Amino acid sequence: MTAVCEPAVYEKVALIGLGLIAGSMAWAMKRDGTAGEVRGYARSAESREMTRRLGFCDVVCDDLAEVVQDADLIVLATPVGVMGRVAETIAPHLKPGAVVIDVGSVKRTVIEEVAPHIPEGVHFVPCHPMAGTEHSGPASGFASLFDNRWCLIVPVEGTPEAEVARLESYWQRLGARTERMEPEHHDLVCAVVSHVPHLIAYTMVGVADDLRRVSDQEVIKFSAAGFRDFTRIAASDPTMWRDVFLTNKEATLEILGRFTEELFALQRAIRTGDGEQLHAYFTRTRAIRRGILQAGQDTDKPDFGRTR
Amino acid sequence: MTAVCEPAVYEKVALIGLGLIAGSMAWAMKRDGTAGEVRGYARSAESREMTRRLGFCDVVCDDLAEVVQDADLIVLATPVGVMGRVAETIAPHLKPGAVVIDVGSVKRTVIEEVAPHIPEGVHFVPCHPMAGTEHSGPASGFASLFDNRWCLIVPVEGTPEAEVARLESYWQRLGARTERMEPEHHDLVCAVVSHVPHLIAYTMVGVADDLRRVSDQEVIKFSAAGFRDFTRIAASDPTMWRDVFLTNKEATLEILGRFTEELFALQRAIRTGDGEQLHAYFTRTRAIRRGILQAGQDTDKPDFGRTR
Repeated sequence: MTAVCEPAVYEKVALIGLGLIAGSMAWAMKRDGTAGEVRGYARSAESREMTRRLGFCDVVCDDLAEVVQDADLIVLATPVGVMGRVAETIAPHLKPGAVVIDVGSVKRTVIEEVAPHIPEGVHFVPCHPMAGTEHSGPASGFASLFDNRWCLIVPVEGTPEAEVARLESYWQRLGARTERMEPEHHDLVCAVVSHVPHLIAYTMVGVADDLRRVSDQEVIKFSAAGFRDFTRIAASDPTMWRDVFLTNKEATLEILGRFTEELFALQRAIRTGDGEQLHAYFTRTRAIRRGILQAGQDTDKPDFGRTR
Repeated sequence: MTAVCEPAVYEKVALIGLGLIAGSMAWAMKRDGTAGEVRGYARSAESREMTRRLGFCDVVCDDLAEVVQDADLIVLATPVGVMGRVAETIAPHLKPGAVVIDVGSVKRTVIEEVAPHIPEGVHFVPCHPMAGTEHSGPASGFASLFDNRWCLIVPVEGTPEAEVARLESYWQRLGARTERMEPEHHDLVCAVVSHVPHLIAYTMVGVADDLRRVSDQEVIKFSAAGFRDFTRIAASDPTMWRDVFLTNKEATLEILGRFTEELFALQRAIRTGDGEQLHAYFTRTRAIRRGILQAGQDTDKPDFGRTR
């Protein structure tokens, strides 16, 4: 695709951590001329080497001080567990007026760990692009990842409105829709729509794997019957998800508690043969699905829109 | 598609219950000339009327005795909870040499409830086509539903091999791959790959719906982040699923017990901050996903093969 004529939103962008999100941001910036120059850094030499080969960064740097030098936008795209340390390391090298964002899936902990390191005159604006696949690493990114997906923006107190608005137009150029949210509310919403569903999917896949009487081969062969969606969710990056659960502990445990409470109620209905309760419950959940179809978040095709 | 030149496998086929499965069987039989004539019956006058309009049955009958008259293959495609009663009603009207099959998702209970009513000289061969969508009713069927999907065949003792083999070729003509299985093993495998995943998805959607602090609108808006797959599963037919859980109680409760055991272990790891355990668990579940991709049961496309 040729770049449109709109000017770059940020002249120099530095990506720290070169996985699915950073790679996709780079490809999307190239697609639309959203940045003048994109530099990248990853801790692993292998990822840096792969990024050089793939060519989605203009420059790949071998250290953190170098990648952030003169950068107008710095993107923390590492697992959330190391963002505090990264912020501490880059802090002395940040240009006055620069904007630092993170793209982590939790916000309260990230703010607690990153914000204290951000120097006076630099703006930290937490972001959460709600997009992903089960793939990870520099080769997993692609330009359309954020198209029509939400990017939640969670500004901290005292951030100039102009900087937040500029960041919104940046994400919109990458294809995303933006919405602002409070950190606590963000973490609760994500626990419900993403974190706990992932944990449950991981668990169910683990149960299947453990069960000696049902062979792996059978689980795989017959996975189309509902289980397949779980394995897809459960194939996501282990380090990223470990950090999500450790840093969004409170909301995750709260929603998990509600989940097991409801599950036990259904389990008791099964044990006692209470068909009415089961039927009423299953009828109620259909409405949410209809809402999602109406909101255009999914396809109504008979095979769920999968091409065979 | 024009019919191929192979002869019909059964001359007269009677479908009892006109939902997603029966409708799809009828369309698939038409596509391939697998039956000479297809007759249909549903308890609800509305379903019969809709089926007449849709035209996937050659004849729509208003009572059970009429639909099974002279039929060579009788398909019980009702919710599993009423199959025993249907079998009892049709028994006196079955032609000697006829084959009765069911297409239910559980097998042991169905065999217990249906087999005693099957007269001498009629063969009952339980089947389970593992295919479906979240839609239901006469208008939800389509010819390709069974293409490349598994149909498990669970023959009872004393069934002539020739009848089982004929049924296998029937399902293959509808597009399915067939495999034989013992009833108890069938019910356990399905509890793992289908029944418990469905219950969990229903539960998670119910939790989201209950949570006052996260609005319905937010749940729907941000559903792409993992939750969407759950809502799709949880939108399936409530009556069918109620019956599945009531009739596959033992295996469902066993797998649910293992699931909550594992979930509690992960919950404890989150509470105590045991990142190593979480990381090891999430790494292990990736392997199953790889197996499913290699088995060709799903797509590896970045957006999971969904067309936007």
